Amino acid sequence: MRRRKKIGAKEELLELEHMLILNPEENKGNWKETLGNERIHLELGTGRGQFINTLAEKHRDIFFIGVEIKEEILLDAVKKSIDRELSNVKYLWFDINEILSIFHENEIERLYINFCDPWPKTRHSKRRLTHRKFLEKYKRILKSNGEIHFKTDGEELFEFSLNEMLDMDYKLKDVSLNLYRDKETNTVKTEYEEKFMSQGKPIYRLVARNYK
Amino acid sequence: MRRRKKIGAKEELLELEHMLILNPEENKGNWKETLGNERIHLELGTGRGQFINTLAEKHRDIFFIGVEIKEEILLDAVKKSIDRELSNVKYLWFDINEILSIFHENEIERLYINFCDPWPKTRHSKRRLTHRKFLEKYKRILKSNGEIHFKTDGEELFEFSLNEMLDMDYKLKDVSLNLYRDKETNTVKTEYEEKFMSQGKPIYRLVARNYK
Repeated sequence: MRRRKKIGAKEELLELEHMLILNPEENKGNWKETLGNERIHLELGTGRGQFINTLAEKHRDIFFIGVEIKEEILLDAVKKSIDRELSNVKYLWFDINEILSIFHENEIERLYINFCDPWPKTRHSKRRLTHRKFLEKYKRILKSNGEIHFKTDGEELFEFSLNEMLDMDYKLKDVSLNLYRDKETNTVKTEYEEKFMSQGKPIYRLVARNYK
Repeated sequence: MRRRKKIGAKEELLELEHMLILNPEENKGNWKETLGNERIHLELGTGRGQFINTLAEKHRDIFFIGVEIKEEILLDAVKKSIDRELSNVKYLWFDINEILSIFHENEIERLYINFCDPWPKTRHSKRRLTHRKFLEKYKRILKSNGEIHFKTDGEELFEFSLNEMLDMDYKLKDVSLNLYRDKETNTVKTEYEEKFMSQGKPIYRLVARNYK
């Protein structure tokens, strides 16, 4: 499940092991106890970590977990947390397909999906993190009324995701087709988001509430 | 309630009275009997009638009612129905604000709202036909599982409408941010729609299902 790409990055990551949860399956059903917090927010595809670390600084009462499979990118995120001396963020280094082997039902309060790979070809739609195959898994690990916060610069991915979520009976709210249309909205931004904004591209956003 | 603008248009309309329902309030609660059909589809702001007349030609088993307040425009729509010898379409000449004085609960199977006035200023938002003030009325006259089919070229109006419908607990489906993105979709088009398409503007579309 774990990819080996750059030996250097991987070795460096393992030296920062205290920021990672290396055998996450062992905590399935016990995350609340392991982390000492029942408010757990998960970012899927956490990238270089600007978003999760900014959130973690702002919301000390919440425990943030960043999920990223690419070690050389994850390393950047981990270093940010260390620099900021954050004790309410850790990282998981695994394939999101396997999420049900890591989390039990109702363990997660919120999921963030930011600028995930759009996989534009229809034959690759099952790889999109908002495909119903994933949404069904999220529904299980999310608490009742737990939320998915989704942002993308991709119009087609956004349309696809919105319809998938509707079909899967998530309750949508706060849908925006151009998040920064009128003015600088007070949001926490990812690295990608800042890049797209500077190019004048619209950012799409929605919140999907899980009710079961 | 009825506006008098061009005396000519109004007089001409009244000569085609058999296509109009001039005292619609009298049918409240009895539309099914009056029209001899329980499948009633209503287009709000029917304009020059290309959309409703094309639908009425295609679906003879459904009774279509076009609502339009501007008599000079309504006249065009009426003439189209006469030219096509359609017996399953009639027109109402009234202000949509008054819709609850015309229809009783559960009388309407489907509502069409096509390219309505976007009223772009926030202080005018209550005039938008998809404002919650209207959505609440539609909810009452629509049957359970009745639908609103909404199309617009206005991104901001679409975003507003989508959020209003979500907040009002309509169940959305078939949301499109660019209806003709990939190819010519087999849809019935309004005059405006053809104009916007020829200009390469995206058309937004959604279906909102009423469940009560």
